[in-house]
Amino acid sequence: VTTAETILSAPEKASVLAEALPYIRRFAGKVVVVKYGGNAMEDESLARIFAEDIVLMRAVGMCPVVVHGGGPQIGDLMSRLGKKPEFRRGLRVTDADTLDIARMVLVGRINRDIVSAINVHGPLAVGLSGEDAQLISAVARSPELGFVGDVDAVNAGILERLLAQDLVPVLATIGADTTGQSYNINADTVAGAVAEALGAERLVYLTNIEGLLADVRDPASRISAIAAADLEAMVTDGAVSEGMIPKLASCVHALRNGVRRAHILDGRVPHVLLLEFFTDEGVGTMVEP
Amino acid sequence: VTTAETILSAPEKASVLAEALPYIRRFAGKVVVVKYGGNAMEDESLARIFAEDIVLMRAVGMCPVVVHGGGPQIGDLMSRLGKKPEFRRGLRVTDADTLDIARMVLVGRINRDIVSAINVHGPLAVGLSGEDAQLISAVARSPELGFVGDVDAVNAGILERLLAQDLVPVLATIGADTTGQSYNINADTVAGAVAEALGAERLVYLTNIEGLLADVRDPASRISAIAAADLEAMVTDGAVSEGMIPKLASCVHALRNGVRRAHILDGRVPHVLLLEFFTDEGVGTMVEP
Amino acid sequence: VTTAETILSAPEKASVLAEALPYIRRFAGKVVVVKYGGNAMEDESLARIFAEDIVLMRAVGMCPVVVHGGGPQIGDLMSRLGKKPEFRRGLRVTDADTLDIARMVLVGRINRDIVSAINVHGPLAVGLSGEDAQLISAVARSPELGFVGDVDAVNAGILERLLAQDLVPVLATIGADTTGQSYNINADTVAGAVAEALGAERLVYLTNIEGLLADVRDPASRISAIAAADLEAMVTDGAVSEGMIPKLASCVHALRNGVRRAHILDGRVPHVLLLEFFTDEGVGTMVEP
Amino acid sequence: VTTAETILSAPEKASVLAEALPYIRRFAGKVVVVKYGGNAMEDESLARIFAEDIVLMRAVGMCPVVVHGGGPQIGDLMSRLGKKPEFRRGLRVTDADTLDIARMVLVGRINRDIVSAINVHGPLAVGLSGEDAQLISAVARSPELGFVGDVDAVNAGILERLLAQDLVPVLATIGADTTGQSYNINADTVAGAVAEALGAERLVYLTNIEGLLADVRDPASRISAIAAADLEAMVTDGAVSEGMIPKLASCVHALRNGVRRAHILDGRVPHVLLLEFFTDEGVGTMVEP
Amino acid sequence: VTTAETILSAPEKASVLAEALPYIRRFAGKVVVVKYGGNAMEDESLARIFAEDIVLMRAVGMCPVVVHGGGPQIGDLMSRLGKKPEFRRGLRVTDADTLDIARMVLVGRINRDIVSAINVHGPLAVGLSGEDAQLISAVARSPELGFVGDVDAVNAGILERLLAQDLVPVLATIGADTTGQSYNINADTVAGAVAEALGAERLVYLTNIEGLLADVRDPASRISAIAAADLEAMVTDGAVSEGMIPKLASCVHALRNGVRRAHILDGRVPHVLLLEFFTDEGVGTMVEP
Amino acid sequence: VTTAETILSAPEKASVLAEALPYIRRFAGKVVVVKYGGNAMEDESLARIFAEDIVLMRAVGMCPVVVHGGGPQIGDLMSRLGKKPEFRRGLRVTDADTLDIARMVLVGRINRDIVSAINVHGPLAVGLSGEDAQLISAVARSPELGFVGDVDAVNAGILERLLAQDLVPVLATIGADTTGQSYNINADTVAGAVAEALGAERLVYLTNIEGLLADVRDPASRISAIAAADLEAMVTDGAVSEGMIPKLASCVHALRNGVRRAHILDGRVPHVLLLEFFTDEGVGTMVEP
Repeated sequence: VTTAETILSAPEKASVLAEALPYIRRFAGKVVVVKYGGNAMEDESLARIFAEDIVLMRAVGMCPVVVHGGGPQIGDLMSRLGKKPEFRRGLRVTDADTLDIARMVLVGRINRDIVSAINVHGPLAVGLSGEDAQLISAVARSPELGFVGDVDAVNAGILERLLAQDLVPVLATIGADTTGQSYNINADTVAGAVAEALGAERLVYLTNIEGLLADVRDPASRISAIAAADLEAMVTDGAVSEGMIPKLASCVHALRNGVRRAHILDGRVPHVLLLEFFTDEGVGTMVEP
Repeated sequence: VTTAETILSAPEKASVLAEALPYIRRFAGKVVVVKYGGNAMEDESLARIFAEDIVLMRAVGMCPVVVHGGGPQIGDLMSRLGKKPEFRRGLRVTDADTLDIARMVLVGRINRDIVSAINVHGPLAVGLSGEDAQLISAVARSPELGFVGDVDAVNAGILERLLAQDLVPVLATIGADTTGQSYNINADTVAGAVAEALGAERLVYLTNIEGLLADVRDPASRISAIAAADLEAMVTDGAVSEGMIPKLASCVHALRNGVRRAHILDGRVPHVLLLEFFTDEGVGTMVEP
Repeated sequence: VTTAETILSAPEKASVLAEALPYIRRFAGKVVVVKYGGNAMEDESLARIFAEDIVLMRAVGMCPVVVHGGGPQIGDLMSRLGKKPEFRRGLRVTDADTLDIARMVLVGRINRDIVSAINVHGPLAVGLSGEDAQLISAVARSPELGFVGDVDAVNAGILERLLAQDLVPVLATIGADTTGQSYNINADTVAGAVAEALGAERLVYLTNIEGLLADVRDPASRISAIAAADLEAMVTDGAVSEGMIPKLASCVHALRNGVRRAHILDGRVPHVLLLEFFTDEGVGTMVEP
Repeated sequence: VTTAETILSAPEKASVLAEALPYIRRFAGKVVVVKYGGNAMEDESLARIFAEDIVLMRAVGMCPVVVHGGGPQIGDLMSRLGKKPEFRRGLRVTDADTLDIARMVLVGRINRDIVSAINVHGPLAVGLSGEDAQLISAVARSPELGFVGDVDAVNAGILERLLAQDLVPVLATIGADTTGQSYNINADTVAGAVAEALGAERLVYLTNIEGLLADVRDPASRISAIAAADLEAMVTDGAVSEGMIPKLASCVHALRNGVRRAHILDGRVPHVLLLEFFTDEGVGTMVEP
Repeated sequence: VTTAETILSAPEKASVLAEALPYIRRFAGKVVVVKYGGNAMEDESLARIFAEDIVLMRAVGMCPVVVHGGGPQIGDLMSRLGKKPEFRRGLRVTDADTLDIARMVLVGRINRDIVSAINVHGPLAVGLSGEDAQLISAVARSPELGFVGDVDAVNAGILERLLAQDLVPVLATIGADTTGQSYNINADTVAGAVAEALGAERLVYLTNIEGLLADVRDPASRISAIAAADLEAMVTDGAVSEGMIPKLASCVHALRNGVRRAHILDGRVPHVLLLEFFTDEGVGTMVEP
Repeated sequence: VTTAETILSAPEKASVLAEALPYIRRFAGKVVVVKYGGNAMEDESLARIFAEDIVLMRAVGMCPVVVHGGGPQIGDLMSRLGKKPEFRRGLRVTDADTLDIARMVLVGRINRDIVSAINVHGPLAVGLSGEDAQLISAVARSPELGFVGDVDAVNAGILERLLAQDLVPVLATIGADTTGQSYNINADTVAGAVAEALGAERLVYLTNIEGLLADVRDPASRISAIAAADLEAMVTDGAVSEGMIPKLASCVHALRNGVRRAHILDGRVPHVLLLEFFTDEGVGTMVEP
């Protein structure tokens, strides 16, 4: 990046800014929900660049909402505490202590790190969990999984008010039920549900892949655009890796409930959000309703 | 409590409500900062009652702001993780790992528990740390103490906006400096600084004592009201226990900077906030400017 | 009342306040139209307590509207002036002079007394008659009755604006037609019509009875809850005293036009409004749609 | 009036409207307090025209406030009730019964008649007494006079809110003290105090004289304009009739406290308000600060 | 006019103002689109009076919008520049240079003159062309006519905002297409389209005739009121002069799309707008839906 | 430009956008007055790019105001009309006909062209002259110069309201006096006066030079930054060309009256506004207070 800055000529710089103009106008005031995770979150330099991009999006009038999980970091603290993960049918069982740990890591560390990185640029980000102002009402997914939750309802009012005050909500994916009991919820699912509740213009998943591949084994087979119905067919046909299924399911659901477009982007590419939203470059996979 | 409910007659109930009337009117729209800690926080039943009281205060038009610390709980997680506390001149040294632990406990557990307890009654509470929207700008207290901070500035805008939306801010006492580095800050100090920044009508410290004692060894010597200057003199004269000094110093500072009254209340008494604000009962110690 | 205050313990007081909490939340911002009359109006101590209750309801966020008549007091001034009441088919004939007298008593004395009693507690009450801002459009009920009117339309804008300013409207039941001619209207009818126009949550009739009796001769036969349809059947069956018919008719009409609940309460019980709205006590008769 | 209408040509009509233009612009949004009394109030045709003028003033953007007394009408009801007026040093003693009568007449009859006459043209006027929303705080003038009050303070908020809603406040000159006790207050005095509290542009006294006379015995000696200081000198020199003294004193006081101009107008002239405010005609006496 | 002013008596003036009252109330806040042209625009004295009338209409709360053309003045500049007008089938061909001339005359001279004449009375008028804020989207009427346009769409937002700020929009009838190409559009057509888009209460055409004549050759045959359908029949029957056809067509269209009334007035009569709107006089022709 | 677009890599593009971020944040909501003239206005491609830049500035939250003159174009129309320019002491004499011509060209052609070029991108620009809403009050500069004016006062309300509606005011430099007489005013002077009245953050002069030169004869001697006092000294010392004097004088005046910075930029450089405001490039001359 530094190199590019010093080499580019004034007309080249001007051309990039002019190229961005129609995109800036198109997205002004539009809500973009960004599911943040993977390398983009764990690599310190990428994390700093991600914060910059979010600030730039906000600066040009977009309304970004960040939703994050934090599986690996939860595992780290569990192992430090000597807890052994337990699985049933491939899903982690979350007992009360595990929930406490997950909540501390998600709300008390990852969320804080994202908020702090953004707020280096100004008083912009406000961290939330789904417990705040009853933002995410959760229900238990299955008794045998303990405090693993599903989204029952999203009460988006607090998000809308923060957006109206030009703030950037950063949401940790803990929800609570009516008795005040908390649950840990899959972040892809929450991102989709929040995008629906906000009637978002865009739903972005930052991942560790180039985008959706037509052939899982061939990195060059990236699909640049696909319809929700075709995406669903791929899931049914087993053409996508198992780990992608919850992400793609929530993506299809969101597109069928008012979200305009979804993007699966490669979070390992610096400034991938800027490239996607403000240039003519085609990156990742766009999913249309 | 249950017993009282069933025994009281209708006229008795009516008399209590009528007694509360002038207090309700006096405090309508007034900001009350409550430093929450000690037994009131650790006893489950008292914690539930505290949440009820906050909700009632909000319901009758007061604007409560909850500020909390969490020393003992931080110590618990540290010992679970096998970390040994280190002290210099009686103050705990906070290295990066300790800060992470403190932040996780304060923001990710205690803050969440308070928010959840309040939100059982409705979408009312929103948890914050001082990092959100640059609410608390911190500076390092002393290099040898590591990430122990002092309040440099309070940017109360986000609190005012939440209060204007009839929400209850619940604040964990983590602050950040301009580089995004976080610090752990004494909760009594933060409570005073926030009360000042909001021009609060009342600043309440929930403690484990009946109030300020004229004679530390005599529980019956509670002082019901005292002027800030006299309180300062007691500190100078060594008439108060060492542990009370930061609390009393922040209290005096706040009263000299616009806060109308401070109260040192016994958090072990159920509904002590209701008794203090809505009845003729005299409880705890009131400090006047 | 004084006795109760001095005897109750702090926990007992706290329990009453905590009991009131869910009711306060439920009624926040809700409009309650109170038809005020009978003993509650004529007994000075009860009148003072009524004013206190209205102020308390307002203080905890309810929106009370007081509607009052004043038959006996009108009769008093008429007899002082040597006028003989004249009746046709059991209804009082209201000539121009009688109307003048009724208007002076209702607007110039009773309304003023209620306003003054409330405003001892602050600048809260504003007296109105149906002539103000064309609040109540009236039509003559029957030529032979003179200036006895019926409600033709309620223009509730002025009430809504006063409520929005946290004021308490106190309404004398005089209306006017398009030529500016005034009419005296039954207060029970006006209370129902105003409750409808405001979409009130509650419509309360303060009376001199314990509530609706299943057996008019048996004071112990109070009905605690009844559906509007059943109430109507009682009227049809002649199971209620004739004097109650207009009250019950307007009550049924209001419940069929958007008012959520109606209450027939005993105005002779001190603080009956507080007991009904803020405690678990069952008093009077509740009528449901 | 009818004659004029039929005879005037189109150009003549147009000329009058064009002449009014600069005055309409000058007075847009300006508060005018009109003390209404005397013949203008008692003659039915003049009363109707007065209402029309107030409506027209409101229609072109002025903010009229009507203040009225009602001495003769109070006397009428007293004599009907067989009460003998009692005087001390020339001032009427007002016992509790007399106050009741005054209040009924002022608030319950005269105020109502004015409100009704205006509201024939639309939902414009709202009647008030000084008891409403603690508008006029009164103190007893002298123990031996009973409930004759002086203005202690004017709480103009309710007037400002009604004006902001394009309504016309009509104010009966009853005030109340902090215990809720009512007092009858001189209407000229109230008009001046209200004009001060509102920072009125104009204060108008409608009287039964052509204006202030240089020589009381010579109707042709009308003074068209006079400074407040000169007016005060006339009072001191005994050059004005005794009955005018309270009016002139309140007028001078108001001009010294922010009111821009006062006018003493002849209420017997039809449409005298329109002539004064919207034409080049010089009528009555203008008093300048 | 001057003569009338000096001769009329006070009661006569008052009668005119009182006569205007109901009209002022009826038109308060109502939008009136005035197509301004002909003698009223070219005679300096009439132009000054027109500006006064617009200011008076605004002063009493109406929302006038002025739409103007300027055929003769365009012709003048063309001949000064030595350009020969070219016609096809009776319509003027508008090449790029002619458009430039038309635009300069309409926007840069006539519009300015109207704005200046109004603003002598205060900061009231704001000149606009249809290019401002994409107010009028135009399409070419026919290739052979060059830059003669038709109204494709009216984006009335800017007009509504100016009206909401109590300003008087003065609109020159130039429109633009999506490429930024400007077109000259018939002013009668624009006036009708703007009136529709604003849901105007009144659409007024100021002309050089007394109104619509039943018999074109008989000036005494003025039709004072006519229905849109009958007006359309007259056009079909050839009963109106050819020059009137575009005016009448846009008038009928506007009345069928929400405009309440249209008026064809004689712009040669001084203050004809005041006479039409604020007196009982019948002038010109009123067209009803 | 096209070349740059196709050659730049994704990271290069991203770097430019990231470089722009702090500038975008710094200028958000800030008013920038741009004096537009010279080549930038006459070269069609540069004019199109200028419009794009203004739209981009608006899109990222800046509040641009365009002020323009048009000397050469006025001269063109004058010569087409056979008028000979007349000069007194080097200044053009402006008779009524010349004023008409200037007004038509400025308001009716140049202003329209700028508005249309911007509005290709959306309903953004609104053309104004100083006559609109009494925006610029003018006084004659000297009787012998005729209708050449100076700025007497700027009534910036209309500009502020348009900016608040996210519109771009484009201002032709015609002013009017209180009688409605128009004047032609120097555009550099108007730009400075408008920037002062708006408390602008930036005042930009687009010129045909690279910036201010230390040595008029040496294009390489561009001064990149200079204090207002030093600039004034250069004028006094005769170190600047005569044609620059009015521009520099208004610039110094504006900086002494609240404008934060002024820039003399080379309007011949494509996208010079973007380069100045959104990149690290140093272009032109910056003048500081």
